[in-house]
Amino acid sequence: MSVTPFMFGPWVIRNSEIFFESALSVALVNLKPVLPGHVLICPRRVVPRYYDLEDHEIADLWKSAKIVSKVIEKHFNGDGLTFAIQDGKNAGQTVPHVHIHIIPRQKTDYENTDQIYTEIEKEREPRTLETMAKEADELRVYFQ
Amino acid sequence: MSVTPFMFGPWVIRNSEIFFESALSVALVNLKPVLPGHVLICPRRVVPRYYDLEDHEIADLWKSAKIVSKVIEKHFNGDGLTFAIQDGKNAGQTVPHVHIHIIPRQKTDYENTDQIYTEIEKEREPRTLETMAKEADELRVYFQ
Repeated sequence: MSVTPFMFGPWVIRNSEIFFESALSVALVNLKPVLPGHVLICPRRVVPRYYDLEDHEIADLWKSAKIVSKVIEKHFNGDGLTFAIQDGKNAGQTVPHVHIHIIPRQKTDYENTDQIYTEIEKEREPRTLETMAKEADELRVYFQ
Repeated sequence: MSVTPFMFGPWVIRNSEIFFESALSVALVNLKPVLPGHVLICPRRVVPRYYDLEDHEIADLWKSAKIVSKVIEKHFNGDGLTFAIQDGKNAGQTVPHVHIHIIPRQKTDYENTDQIYTEIEKEREPRTLETMAKEADELRVYFQ
């Protein structure tokens, strides 16, 4: 785990929320997941737009996304995954730091599979720190 | 341009629909874009799921996505971009070949920015081959 806290845009992320780290990327559990297993993966460097990333950051980020998504799909009994980046405010981005939404999908989750994206924008109850830490603990095991 | 036709899943893609090629990836205009400038970028290799990709294919694909997205955002007067992969049928995937949707966004495109994803699933009128070829011709210029 990092000693310096990871900044998600302007927000300090607790180590208890982080379950995967690579050289240039960090994966964290979500305060307000739209579905079980909805996690975020970000470059360490705080940059708002995808085009701000260097090619080696991009390679690390999306390689990490493959490693993480494979695990969360299985752990949350998914059969399919949604990957999305809201790149800029007009695309729905709320934290100005590139982040990939990774969401395990099931046949039964929504009647219209793409309803997921409308759900991303809806107001949702935040989870407790305890719930998030517990989930991160469970996921962290896979990457040790 | 390739001599062997590019296969998008089971579909043969005409060279006239392709506007960008890298060693391992191909970008094509869309038969049924949800918004102007909605393009697709795929690995050359026909694999259904993201986890099927090798790390060097992933690096090439997402580096290409950066190059292509920067151009289409500007060309279509976007301010923001949506990137999405529907990875598997339960995530809305219809062609079993990994593809990134890249969509330039504008402040005024939808009242709810994430309505875009519902639109992706709706039935839309296919465009003519001529319209598609013309758009690909316009975009191809940027990458020569």
